[in-house]
Amino acid sequence: MLVAKNEPAPQNVIMMISDGFGPASEAYARQYHSWDQGLGYKAMLPLDTILVGSSRTQSSSSMITDSAAGATAFACAQKSYNGAIGVDSKGVPCGTVLESAKLHRNMLTGLVVTSRITHATPASFSAHVLGRDSENDIASQQIGFNPLGRTVDLMFGGGACEFTSNLTEHSCRLDTRDLFEEAKESFGWTVKRTREDFDEIEPSDAELPLMGLFAPDHMSYEIDRDSSKQPSLKEMAKKALEILNVASKKQGTGFFMMIEGSRIDMAAHTNDPAAHVHEIYEYNQAILAVKEFVDANPNTVVISTSDHETGGFTIGRQIGKDYPEYKWNPEVIKRVQHSSQYLAGIWRKEIDASDEDYSAKVKEFLVTVILRDGLGIDNPTDEELERLMSWKGSNKWTEELAYDLTDMVSRRALLGWSTHGHTAVDVNLYAYGHQSEKLRGNHENTDIGDFIVEQLDLNLEDITERLKSHDSFKEFGVNNIENSNTTTNKHKYHHL
Amino acid sequence: MLVAKNEPAPQNVIMMISDGFGPASEAYARQYHSWDQGLGYKAMLPLDTILVGSSRTQSSSSMITDSAAGATAFACAQKSYNGAIGVDSKGVPCGTVLESAKLHRNMLTGLVVTSRITHATPASFSAHVLGRDSENDIASQQIGFNPLGRTVDLMFGGGACEFTSNLTEHSCRLDTRDLFEEAKESFGWTVKRTREDFDEIEPSDAELPLMGLFAPDHMSYEIDRDSSKQPSLKEMAKKALEILNVASKKQGTGFFMMIEGSRIDMAAHTNDPAAHVHEIYEYNQAILAVKEFVDANPNTVVISTSDHETGGFTIGRQIGKDYPEYKWNPEVIKRVQHSSQYLAGIWRKEIDASDEDYSAKVKEFLVTVILRDGLGIDNPTDEELERLMSWKGSNKWTEELAYDLTDMVSRRALLGWSTHGHTAVDVNLYAYGHQSEKLRGNHENTDIGDFIVEQLDLNLEDITERLKSHDSFKEFGVNNIENSNTTTNKHKYHHL
Repeated sequence: MLVAKNEPAPQNVIMMISDGFGPASEAYARQYHSWDQGLGYKAMLPLDTILVGSSRTQSSSSMITDSAAGATAFACAQKSYNGAIGVDSKGVPCGTVLESAKLHRNMLTGLVVTSRITHATPASFSAHVLGRDSENDIASQQIGFNPLGRTVDLMFGGGACEFTSNLTEHSCRLDTRDLFEEAKESFGWTVKRTREDFDEIEPSDAELPLMGLFAPDHMSYEIDRDSSKQPSLKEMAKKALEILNVASKKQGTGFFMMIEGSRIDMAAHTNDPAAHVHEIYEYNQAILAVKEFVDANPNTVVISTSDHETGGFTIGRQIGKDYPEYKWNPEVIKRVQHSSQYLAGIWRKEIDASDEDYSAKVKEFLVTVILRDGLGIDNPTDEELERLMSWKGSNKWTEELAYDLTDMVSRRALLGWSTHGHTAVDVNLYAYGHQSEKLRGNHENTDIGDFIVEQLDLNLEDITERLKSHDSFKEFGVNNIENSNTTTNKHKYHHL
Repeated sequence: MLVAKNEPAPQNVIMMISDGFGPASEAYARQYHSWDQGLGYKAMLPLDTILVGSSRTQSSSSMITDSAAGATAFACAQKSYNGAIGVDSKGVPCGTVLESAKLHRNMLTGLVVTSRITHATPASFSAHVLGRDSENDIASQQIGFNPLGRTVDLMFGGGACEFTSNLTEHSCRLDTRDLFEEAKESFGWTVKRTREDFDEIEPSDAELPLMGLFAPDHMSYEIDRDSSKQPSLKEMAKKALEILNVASKKQGTGFFMMIEGSRIDMAAHTNDPAAHVHEIYEYNQAILAVKEFVDANPNTVVISTSDHETGGFTIGRQIGKDYPEYKWNPEVIKRVQHSSQYLAGIWRKEIDASDEDYSAKVKEFLVTVILRDGLGIDNPTDEELERLMSWKGSNKWTEELAYDLTDMVSRRALLGWSTHGHTAVDVNLYAYGHQSEKLRGNHENTDIGDFIVEQLDLNLEDITERLKSHDSFKEFGVNNIENSNTTTNKHKYHHL
């Protein structure tokens, strides 16, 4: 080390979260990619080159965690209950590594995600509410209406609907507040909303605080993304890194950034293996960019792990009673052109708009546009077609209907799923850079929070005290957890 | 290091294989054990304390391997086809680490398993046949009828049926050879067959070569084991370690031992979560004993990994259409008293022996003895009872029938399985002791063979040359793989 002990270089910590990504998902994406690119069995994905161990994921309330408790474990270095956003197992607000990095170390802080920015994972680093569904409140806290004031310097992702008045289109607020205006006026945020906005950001002189929310709801699945309309996770991660690196160097501090591949999880909830593999590959592209940054900035450590596994995904499936061959079929995945959620939206609109006597023409649309061109399936069974035709007039969520489509793909690819929810398997732990060797082995998810605290010499307890003493958080606590709406899913299938 | 570079202390390598044990199985066993013993979420199993990375498992013929190709990858440090026992992807015999340790380093060698000793995993270290079903030949090669002569010094496990004449009871030979007699006469083996025999072995003066085969077929599942009749995996591993340690020290060499938790895999093939967790726990007990040995003998390294995952096992399962709660039910597993294979054997015998008008009395037996006392299930549905009653006169294998029982348990415990076969997920890699840090990260399964070669300065190519030049192996090769019976399962469901 060239740096004397008493004058340490500013440290950067990049926490990357692959939401809902279990061990099978990594092996699946690697095998798919190797097959697709003809790379042979020795090819590895960027993540594979930095594996250090695994993370145990259970929450304080269950052996199977949700994303809120999972992210709070990283952010507060504490186990909490499923649904908890930056609060402990008793519902008391807990200081986060992001907040302490900002307030104790004067570091710059960033959140880069592909979900709504108010979704459980980014929320747990930057807000404190009893239940994950309180996204309107989370948005308000994130811009700075928070006992600590503003602690986030940069936010990229989706979820503009949580910041716009419910008098406007695409709002998901229950009130008329325009948080974009409030953010500018009260806290000096620069607000970006479009791909053009994003491209125009010059990292070297970007003004902070800066938020770029590029979709009303979650950003598109990578498999569906129109690159003229939305940046990719890798693009956002790279630009955010450059911005925070330049700006933090100017002020002589480091930065803390959380980057989430948010929709790896959502594809797994829908049991959609094609959308899933594209999300994972894009996450690995972001990892590659971050690894390059670490190589150029050795005072940086990147940690990458998941909050939990989603879907009970397995790379092998027995169809029927006969003992299975040992194989799965990547070519089935290759033929899929869109997420099933996207195709389900189209198909539902088509069938619901059709006349009573809809069978022939609409069935043709189903067989050609949805199944052949969309899913790459040219051999639907009568039973499958019948099931898809029966969607007409259904009052189910489109995402739930999409299960019929994903099942057609998974059965043909011989890929297994045991649930639309989460499972308890340990998730892989990856790390690279400054002192990453400390994370070797099998860990509790809270150990990752502890590692960040140690790396940056943080003081979460002090933040917790500041939060607890504030009037607005006085009503928090165990007695209100039950009333905190953790089980009602406002966005339902987006919320898992 | 006290040892000078030119006079290295004799090295011991202990290769432990948890057959069919994927990442979910470890987290499952840990959560079950912590819950059962009231240890809290921080409790770890012995394996958890020595996690170093993961192993990629695909074979030369498929993205999903079988146990034969999986073990051959460890033994020969080469990828081969599914079904291959100590032969390469072209069907040519390949030298194994066990053989080179014996012949080049004069080390002592041992195999300790709970399957038949002729089963794919131990066979791949000690024999060379084109197809795994050639267990009669494997037995013959293992005792010394092999171009290399005898290379194994100690064998503990099951599978006596492969060594006894088909004129006697419990034989699974196609000929009248008595390999126990031949082993004694031609190669000087000491043969042990019973629990008493096992207990009488004095490690300090045991005579080598020594074989102890304590069951005609596989040894009992740990959950079913009668400890007065069969030793446990841990007991066998401990005794074998002591024997080889004493004897190898006497001759101034080290030893190579392969220890397999063979039936972790078989329980997963049957999708039997209770038998599975008991096998895993016993394997962890063996790990504990081996770790203690390594602590006392620091010139030793233990590697523990799996050949592949089995069952597509997941810790979480959605039953029905409703979005699942995030939980699973360990208490369901706790109530199970026997493997489903064991109970299926009893139930099948009972129902097949019953009169035509069997319903009432036999149903009572099913409800009380099999379900309530055996599986701990007191709420069978009518449909479940009907399915079990329909076994009468079935020509299915008992193990296949047992699927009905395991499914009752798994559904109630909320545990998922996607297949009765294997899947492609990376398996955990554990290591402890001398230079174990070299195994950190994500590896090919063949890297583990390479590591052993490097540790012991072996020469597999030389062994391969000796094998290839021998007359009896001249017919080997790619043209005969197809005829090698790799797909006909003589033992069928025991063979996977």
